[in-house]
Amino acid sequence: MLVVHKYGGTSMGSVERIKSVAQRVAKWHRAGHRVVVVPSAMAGETNRLLGLAKEISAEADPRELDQIASTGEQVSVGLLAIALQALGVKAKSYTGWQAGIKTDSAFTKARITEIDGAKLLSDLDAGVIPIVTGFQGIDGAGNITTLGRGGSDTQAVAVAAAIKADECLIYTDVDAIYTTDPRVVEDARPLKVIAFEEMFELASLGSKVLQIRSVEFAGKYRVPTRVLSSFTDPLIPIEIEAKSGTLITFEEDEKMEQAVVSGIAFNRDEAKITLRGVPDMPGIAYKIVGPIGEANIDIDMIVQNIGESGHTDFSFTVHRNEFDRAMRVLNEQVKPALGAKEVVGDNRVCKVSIVGIGMRSHVGIAATMFKALADENINIQMITTSEIKTSVLVDDKYMELAVRALHRAFELDKEPAARAA
Amino acid sequence: MLVVHKYGGTSMGSVERIKSVAQRVAKWHRAGHRVVVVPSAMAGETNRLLGLAKEISAEADPRELDQIASTGEQVSVGLLAIALQALGVKAKSYTGWQAGIKTDSAFTKARITEIDGAKLLSDLDAGVIPIVTGFQGIDGAGNITTLGRGGSDTQAVAVAAAIKADECLIYTDVDAIYTTDPRVVEDARPLKVIAFEEMFELASLGSKVLQIRSVEFAGKYRVPTRVLSSFTDPLIPIEIEAKSGTLITFEEDEKMEQAVVSGIAFNRDEAKITLRGVPDMPGIAYKIVGPIGEANIDIDMIVQNIGESGHTDFSFTVHRNEFDRAMRVLNEQVKPALGAKEVVGDNRVCKVSIVGIGMRSHVGIAATMFKALADENINIQMITTSEIKTSVLVDDKYMELAVRALHRAFELDKEPAARAA
Repeated sequence: MLVVHKYGGTSMGSVERIKSVAQRVAKWHRAGHRVVVVPSAMAGETNRLLGLAKEISAEADPRELDQIASTGEQVSVGLLAIALQALGVKAKSYTGWQAGIKTDSAFTKARITEIDGAKLLSDLDAGVIPIVTGFQGIDGAGNITTLGRGGSDTQAVAVAAAIKADECLIYTDVDAIYTTDPRVVEDARPLKVIAFEEMFELASLGSKVLQIRSVEFAGKYRVPTRVLSSFTDPLIPIEIEAKSGTLITFEEDEKMEQAVVSGIAFNRDEAKITLRGVPDMPGIAYKIVGPIGEANIDIDMIVQNIGESGHTDFSFTVHRNEFDRAMRVLNEQVKPALGAKEVVGDNRVCKVSIVGIGMRSHVGIAATMFKALADENINIQMITTSEIKTSVLVDDKYMELAVRALHRAFELDKEPAARAA
Repeated sequence: MLVVHKYGGTSMGSVERIKSVAQRVAKWHRAGHRVVVVPSAMAGETNRLLGLAKEISAEADPRELDQIASTGEQVSVGLLAIALQALGVKAKSYTGWQAGIKTDSAFTKARITEIDGAKLLSDLDAGVIPIVTGFQGIDGAGNITTLGRGGSDTQAVAVAAAIKADECLIYTDVDAIYTTDPRVVEDARPLKVIAFEEMFELASLGSKVLQIRSVEFAGKYRVPTRVLSSFTDPLIPIEIEAKSGTLITFEEDEKMEQAVVSGIAFNRDEAKITLRGVPDMPGIAYKIVGPIGEANIDIDMIVQNIGESGHTDFSFTVHRNEFDRAMRVLNEQVKPALGAKEVVGDNRVCKVSIVGIGMRSHVGIAATMFKALADENINIQMITTSEIKTSVLVDDKYMELAVRALHRAFELDKEPAARAA
């Protein structure tokens, strides 16, 4: 197999851990697999470096921040190369620019535009393990850029796409993607397989396991990506390791679990705002949403109720950190301009979502969801739906209760084959 | 003026010190000077990084060591750029490869082969202060290389040569080059000017202020180089700062102090070996020195005495660390091969040298030296001379006494104009 191994900062967190990563990589290499490794900076290093920059200036030049922050990964690739060589395996480190990873010039959050896999493939042909920095590349003017937080996942997937790897293995400090957060639901079950679209919804809904852009990349280039643990014994048999964790797949074949709902996501960072008594006429939504966008505030859910006697209520949610700013925009600009009755806000709400590609072909899923919440006396404040997801906004004191009720209602603690539905 | 500022690791040792460096650079910039800055890694950082590598493997790949060690300077240039920008000055950081610093592929001790100053000069034309990493470059294959310890001094001088700077200012933790080590001679006097050739002799004799290769570079490209303190108030007037420290110059004009002897160097790392009763015939020196060279041992001083009755004594010095190995080579290989009488060694010796370009045109300097030592009853074991230097080997218990006697004999505590000779 041709594979990319990605190791997170915790997995690279000390000299001992780096040696353990080297043992794992060497095991794959010796078994005849061709491996490219993408390690993160040692845990805490990027924060330490950016902390120094912030001590000097709170508004540091993003170009210089990238110049500084990119060094954490550069140290990691060198150390891992040395650790592999110490095991008698040929290895060679590459910075982003050395590996031919081109990006745009959006410093601190650059996007990869091109990867030239030729150098890595020629190393592999020569029996050398190439080790490539995560999180960074070079722009057209020769500046070092970084991809922003979580960029190492994205880089690993991008490298896997460039060399047409059979699989990208993301080694991390969790052992799988779960049906929901095990800290909230004791019975949460690790998923063997998850569809790319489901993973995308789960990532964007707040699951912190994989960075959203890496999932986007995996989807765009159809890179089979596996999330698995780097905290197992590095010398466990490859047959076992290669089947562990969760595989994000693009093929809905017999291997897929036949689940209607695969997982439950939740997000406590929501705040709800309602504009009451708005004149009900065309263009009203734009007149409300426009000023919010101009203030650089992202809107998540939007609901417009049918109004009475020519007036309507308009509700939407924003990130809780933007709540005060959004309220000010509405009170100072939108309300007087539209002659609305009042602005009401609530920043103690949360969003709970069920996700599953099976929802496409199954009816009654939303009904099951609403009944489960009603049975617990949880009031639903807003609802939005997409093809493979249904989200509700509820009072955030009910969050754990809602997640547990839904997990039970959809029998996520059981293997799909064992479920009633 | 077009100048290069070089700041050592101690000068860059903390966020506060970096801010102070930025104030000093900004002062020069605002006074209308064009400045390129070459800072070292923060003190201790290179050792920390190489320490991590050594923890993983005692025999780490030099290419990977350079990949790792070069990051210390990369962080420094970014932080200094941010500190300058915070003062409202335009600044931009460059790694060695970004600045176009080409080297050979001798990892951990690479030599600069080419510097393209165009990018730096175009920044300066645009009012931007370029900040270039010390200590590193890129080889023909795109690998990062480092120049080895002290390489930042060399890089600064090389950059100054490439942009044809008027002066290269080496800011360090001493305030000047002294007539001799002030810890040995209380009256040691800071030199305002020193000739390149003298500095070269002083550096190679053990003065630790400037790395020998940077002096070589300064000489080759005739870069006026000034050693001065980074521990003065960063805002002292430029007129004062620009004349402080010691200027290493290439012009023996009226600015030069008319000293015969400029300084006294000493070196405790010597060991003396004598081969007694060697047959006095052509080729004998080679037969002794050859096997030592093959054993990779550097020889410093060599003296062959006129022999009696067809036999001679042959003496030389090596670094004290190589003493045992050199003795073994002589006893096991050279002595039996030549039929010499005996091998005598002494590793409690030291070398004391007087240095000065005035010695070229003045006679009797050596006589003054020998008399000063004789007056203190110090026995001279060996003597070597070069155009601008006379060195003697003495018992190392007399080292301080010899240095003080010579300092007094040549009146180095006085300004040259005030001396008797």
